Amino acid sequence: MDANIINPFVASTVNVIKTMAFTEPVSGAPRVKMDRLTWGDVTGIIGLAGEGMAGNMVLSFSAPSILGIVSKMLGEQFTELNKDVVDAVGELTNMISGGAKAELYEYGYRFHMATPMIIVGKNVELSQLSKVPIIQIPFTTPEGEFVCEANLANRS
Amino acid sequence: MDANIINPFVASTVNVIKTMAFTEPVSGAPRVKMDRLTWGDVTGIIGLAGEGMAGNMVLSFSAPSILGIVSKMLGEQFTELNKDVVDAVGELTNMISGGAKAELYEYGYRFHMATPMIIVGKNVELSQLSKVPIIQIPFTTPEGEFVCEANLANRS
Repeated sequence: MDANIINPFVASTVNVIKTMAFTEPVSGAPRVKMDRLTWGDVTGIIGLAGEGMAGNMVLSFSAPSILGIVSKMLGEQFTELNKDVVDAVGELTNMISGGAKAELYEYGYRFHMATPMIIVGKNVELSQLSKVPIIQIPFTTPEGEFVCEANLANRS
Repeated sequence: MDANIINPFVASTVNVIKTMAFTEPVSGAPRVKMDRLTWGDVTGIIGLAGEGMAGNMVLSFSAPSILGIVSKMLGEQFTELNKDVVDAVGELTNMISGGAKAELYEYGYRFHMATPMIIVGKNVELSQLSKVPIIQIPFTTPEGEFVCEANLANRS
């Protein structure tokens, strides 16, 4: 997978979290995802699909990180992964993939976004039938950690 | 959601399973999915995305049904949900959504497909940020049951 695909996902993640939750996540070094499990306690997933192009974006949050982010987003204290928090993960998944989509369009990667889905549960077995490696980017916030995972390949 | 969207998913499911596994699944009455859980033991999901259109298709199999189908597909006996079975669920998800896509194109619904994902686990908490109800269609095979779930909405 073209490594340049990763930067728009990093930039959009930082931009959306900073804008929505007034906290600036710090990104770490991208790595190849080696397991077939959800990384965090709550995971947003969204399909990316265009003419001859297919992939997914996944955002997976530790409980402390997402409770901190959603508490700041919605202006009230959340202490459990309830429906409001789950829905907020879906909205963040939508917004972050939308930002990356807009930037990737400039580089000739043209795709649309499916409807966000959200899985609750850590280490849920989640595989992809992907022809390219899945790149995982770690992020740190004052409240905790999360990851963004992305893959995008030509459909043959 | 336009009820006519459902028939192409039913027809494609029957056609693909019949062609690949030499068994003809019998469909039951479509119903609205009311919970936020995976129905079966292994679940294939795929994003559907086009200009102004977004959704997902989900196939969720009981263990006996998918072990029977994959054993017939691959010509050897499978008794556990191993990587071969998980990958076959991804391929079936791809083929069935591809068949429905081709038929829906005739009716003016134009979308592309993302990369299939597969969740292993029954009653995993899986929600969607969908603006329309998710329609669940039950299917019966001699080996067991599975469901196809679909939603497709205009993106505003």
